[in-house]
Amino acid sequence: MVTTITVRGETHAEPGYAVTIGERVLDDARTKLAGRRAVIVTDPHVRGLHAARLALDAPIVEVERGEAAKRFATLERVLEDFARLGLGRGSVVVGLGGGSIGDLAGLAASLYMRGLELVQCPTTLLAQVDASVGGKTAVDLAAGKNLAGTFHAPSAVFADTSTLTTLADDEFRSGLGEVLKSALLDGEEFVARLETSADRIARREPHVLHELVARSVRLKSAIVERDPRERDERKALNLGHTFAHAIEHVAGYGRVPHGVAVAVGVGLALRAGGAQELADRVERLARALGLVATLAELRTHTRLDLPATALAQSMQLDKKGVARSPRFVLLDAPGRVRWDQSLEPRVLERVLA
Amino acid sequence: MVTTITVRGETHAEPGYAVTIGERVLDDARTKLAGRRAVIVTDPHVRGLHAARLALDAPIVEVERGEAAKRFATLERVLEDFARLGLGRGSVVVGLGGGSIGDLAGLAASLYMRGLELVQCPTTLLAQVDASVGGKTAVDLAAGKNLAGTFHAPSAVFADTSTLTTLADDEFRSGLGEVLKSALLDGEEFVARLETSADRIARREPHVLHELVARSVRLKSAIVERDPRERDERKALNLGHTFAHAIEHVAGYGRVPHGVAVAVGVGLALRAGGAQELADRVERLARALGLVATLAELRTHTRLDLPATALAQSMQLDKKGVARSPRFVLLDAPGRVRWDQSLEPRVLERVLA
Repeated sequence: MVTTITVRGETHAEPGYAVTIGERVLDDARTKLAGRRAVIVTDPHVRGLHAARLALDAPIVEVERGEAAKRFATLERVLEDFARLGLGRGSVVVGLGGGSIGDLAGLAASLYMRGLELVQCPTTLLAQVDASVGGKTAVDLAAGKNLAGTFHAPSAVFADTSTLTTLADDEFRSGLGEVLKSALLDGEEFVARLETSADRIARREPHVLHELVARSVRLKSAIVERDPRERDERKALNLGHTFAHAIEHVAGYGRVPHGVAVAVGVGLALRAGGAQELADRVERLARALGLVATLAELRTHTRLDLPATALAQSMQLDKKGVARSPRFVLLDAPGRVRWDQSLEPRVLERVLA
Repeated sequence: MVTTITVRGETHAEPGYAVTIGERVLDDARTKLAGRRAVIVTDPHVRGLHAARLALDAPIVEVERGEAAKRFATLERVLEDFARLGLGRGSVVVGLGGGSIGDLAGLAASLYMRGLELVQCPTTLLAQVDASVGGKTAVDLAAGKNLAGTFHAPSAVFADTSTLTTLADDEFRSGLGEVLKSALLDGEEFVARLETSADRIARREPHVLHELVARSVRLKSAIVERDPRERDERKALNLGHTFAHAIEHVAGYGRVPHGVAVAVGVGLALRAGGAQELADRVERLARALGLVATLAELRTHTRLDLPATALAQSMQLDKKGVARSPRFVLLDAPGRVRWDQSLEPRVLERVLA
């Protein structure tokens, strides 16, 4: 089975792009790229697992695995490699890997000669349900994650669900955190579907993984079509993320996988917004999916203190220690979302305790 | 006198921007920026000459003078400075200086948090007539100039013509090379105007400088409105540039000022395209403007060999030494332009001899 979801372009001049989801769709990517001058950006781990599936004679530019790839020095090296390989305006950059690869390859593609065509081949659950759609690209600065980047839409996304069976458990679960978020933004039906199929998801049954990816992509596509530059509604996709970023920051980047922090953050956002029953329900669902459901569980599980004051401070102070008012996405019920909300400090303290 | 030229946005969602041209318009920039959180990107030389005119209490990020600023390492440092200064989505980046400052400040603005507002305050003739309008940003790679960049339109451009009196003769003349190109693209009236006022231009009379900047900006605005991403007509703005880039490359970057190479390149393009009479006329005009008019004069003037074979090779081989077909902009008469043209190798050899 193959599902194709089309994302309209930002302007009428732009053609938009198709997200193709299915068990062997890297073969479709190969067909699309045949005869084109292409370069594959990937890491050594993903290269070993999946690059042969693309089976292009395209050169491969290797970068570090994970967040380590999203550095300025790596970006510069990749761009110099593009030049050395003689890429021109008609060339295509293929990002093959997880969210970090997609972010870096996307930024390199958007900068080289002021913009090359980009094809995303996400190989992690997180990248398939979230990062590969919507055109955000980024590298990190010393001062924070994703601080330098562009919006650069791909010309196509190939989400091959067979790659999901190769993920380590932690990596797979991290993706489920973003799926949980998508379900809550989407509505009751998607949430109920996760509840009734949690065990099949944990067993990574192909059919149900396909459905999760397709539902999540459909939700995200609809939102980024309406608000490509995150001026308004796209902010809803940050449900749980103000808390998650504070958790990742206080833990030290890389200690808590992003999606794991998001799952905990979603629960915290629900409690802070006063949706106690929904929070209880989401915590049960998170546990059923093998995710850490609460801040208390995360502290036990990671053996990290994650003090409430440090988390609150991380949200309330910017990099110079200047006070700011953190913004939250809150949910009244599945599918009923409010963004750009503020929270009382005492409410924050209570949920972080 | 103040002239304001409005450049429409690329999409209906974008507001477009005004280019304000006049003797004291840095004061208008100050007014526009009052109360905004801003940062000024400039070099030590321009800072000493003009930063006080902006008289903001905004912090200043200093970069190297000239093309040396357009390096990846400088870009990274500027972005880290932005973070250290606590810039947020509502902040404004002000580029104060020549074309290199504008290119670098523009790229930093377009990348930081995926895009901050940008105000360009060009202080050289070249930047006022060309670089500050149209939204191109760039840094250089080891493999070539301007190879990494974005399109990021400013929210306003303030071209203060009083800054032009502070330019060194070489720098001023380099700008005249781009003015000459603009006049030829625009039509007979602009070319004739340059011919009748060459001596007043050389004396840098304020009134005539104002007119040159306004005419050039009007021409460029109209073209970039119709083709913001250089897919078609905007290529016309590269008149003389295929030759100019080869001259700059063979001479060694920085040895021949860009606009000086452009003036020679325009003459070569006219000859190569068979417009001999117009080429004669343009060479006379270039000399009247104090510019080097021909390749032979440039060789004498710079004491550089600039061998024909090396120039031809620079155009015909890419960075890997792979053959390519260089594209040229040709002119049948002032205002009658053809882009994306190729030339016979023997024609190239003849004009480069």
